[in-house]
Amino acid sequence: MSGWLAIAGMGPGAAQLITPEVTEALAEATDLIGYATYVARVPARADLSRHASDNREELDRARLALRLAAKGKRVVVVSSGDPGVFAMAAAVFEAVEAGDPSWRDLDIRVLPGISAMFAAAARIGAPLGHDFCAINLSNNLKPWDLIERRLRLAAQADFVIALYNPASKARPHQLGQAFELLRKLKAAETPVLFVRAAGTAEAEVVTTTLGAADPSRADMRTLVIVGASTTRQVGRWIYTPRSERGAPS
Amino acid sequence: MSGWLAIAGMGPGAAQLITPEVTEALAEATDLIGYATYVARVPARADLSRHASDNREELDRARLALRLAAKGKRVVVVSSGDPGVFAMAAAVFEAVEAGDPSWRDLDIRVLPGISAMFAAAARIGAPLGHDFCAINLSNNLKPWDLIERRLRLAAQADFVIALYNPASKARPHQLGQAFELLRKLKAAETPVLFVRAAGTAEAEVVTTTLGAADPSRADMRTLVIVGASTTRQVGRWIYTPRSERGAPS
Repeated sequence: MSGWLAIAGMGPGAAQLITPEVTEALAEATDLIGYATYVARVPARADLSRHASDNREELDRARLALRLAAKGKRVVVVSSGDPGVFAMAAAVFEAVEAGDPSWRDLDIRVLPGISAMFAAAARIGAPLGHDFCAINLSNNLKPWDLIERRLRLAAQADFVIALYNPASKARPHQLGQAFELLRKLKAAETPVLFVRAAGTAEAEVVTTTLGAADPSRADMRTLVIVGASTTRQVGRWIYTPRSERGAPS
Repeated sequence: MSGWLAIAGMGPGAAQLITPEVTEALAEATDLIGYATYVARVPARADLSRHASDNREELDRARLALRLAAKGKRVVVVSSGDPGVFAMAAAVFEAVEAGDPSWRDLDIRVLPGISAMFAAAARIGAPLGHDFCAINLSNNLKPWDLIERRLRLAAQADFVIALYNPASKARPHQLGQAFELLRKLKAAETPVLFVRAAGTAEAEVVTTTLGAADPSRADMRTLVIVGASTTRQVGRWIYTPRSERGAPS
C-alpha cells in the first residue's frame, strides 16, 4: 500500500467553507494530524487515528506526518485557513528539507483552503480589492526590526495590509507599536478592521480608523486589516476600489 | 419576496475547489451573472436566468445584479478565484457607491473562494509560506509608474510577490519590464514560478529563476510568483520557510 500526505486547508471554521477536495481527503485518511482545535472539527471514525498536538509544535507534527506517510499511511495534516499562508505547508517542507532524503520522493499534496484574510474581507465587503500584502506580526521566527521595515515599505507602497497573528499573551505590545509606526506614514482616517473569528458563527467585526484603533481589541483569533489610501466606506461596507481614481461616477 | 445579491468565488476552476456555501447559493439563485466562462460552469436549470457578458464589462454586470436584487431576485454574481481579489466584489461596491442610494440597504453577501494565488502556490509547494504581496500588473485602472513603485518597494521589503494579470494581448511587454526592474534589486537565482490554469485539469507549472525568466511564457491565465530571498527548492517543491533563518537542521 502506498502512503501519501495531504496538507489540508480547513478554512476559517465553518463547515460550509471546506472544499470538497479536503472533505474527500479526510474521508480517505488513516491518520489525522494537527493542532487539537482543528483535529476536533473532523468527525470520528473507527479506522481513523488522531494525533492532536499543541499549536507550537509544528515541526514535530510535520515529522510525524512524514514518518507515517513513509510507512504507507494516508495522512492528512489539518491546518486552519489556507495551509500555505503562515500555516502547516511551509513547516512540512522545512521538515522534508532537513529530514530523511527519502521523504523527498513521498506523495505530498497541498490542498488549498479559504484563508482567514479572505474570509475576514468577505465579511465586511472588499477591503482587499486592490494591491495588498500579508505580514505575520509574530517575531517568534523573525526579528522585530524586519517586521517594522516591511510595515514601513508596505505603507510607502500604499498596499492594503493584512496583519496575521497581531497579538498573543506573550506578545501584547507589538500591534500597538505597528499602529504607531503606520500613523507616521498614513492618514489618521485610514480604515482599520479588526475581524475576530471570521468565517465562524461567532464572527465579530470592528470598523475603526488608524487614528482611533485600539490595539487591545486584537487577540490570537483576530485578523487586522489596515486600508490603503483609497479604501473607503459605503453603507455598512468597507472596500478598496479597483482604480486609483476611486469609484466611478 | 425579498431579493439578495451574493458575489460568489468559484475558485480557480475545478468543481472540487468550490465551497458548499457557494454551491448552496447557486442552487437558490434565480439569476446568474458573470463573465461567460464562469457562467458556463454552472449547470443549467429551467428556473435560472443566465446573464453572461464579456470580461471587461464588470461595472455593467454589477449594476445589472443590483437592479435585479432590488426587484426581489436572488442574484449570484460569479467570479473566478476569490471575489475580493482583483475580481467582482470591488466592482459591485463601486456600483453601490455611485448608484441608487437604496442599493446600500440591499442584502449583499461576499462568498469567499479559493484564489488563483493559493491554488497556484499549493500546486508547487508553499512559495507563499512567509510575508507576501499581490500586485495586479494591469495598468488598465492605474498608472504604470505606480506599479513600478510597488514592485520596487515589494522587492526592498523582500516580500514574495504574486503577480496577477501579468500579460494580455493588449499588454505584452509589462511582465518583461517588471522582471527587468526586479533583476536590479533581487538575486538572479531567485525562484520564479509561472503557474498556468492552476486548480484545473490543464494546470502547468514552470519553475525558473529571475535571471532566466522568459516573460513570453505568461498569458492571461498565468499567475507569476517571484520568490523572496529565502524561497528555495527541495526535491520537486518550492517553498518559503517560516523563519528568516531558513530550514531547521
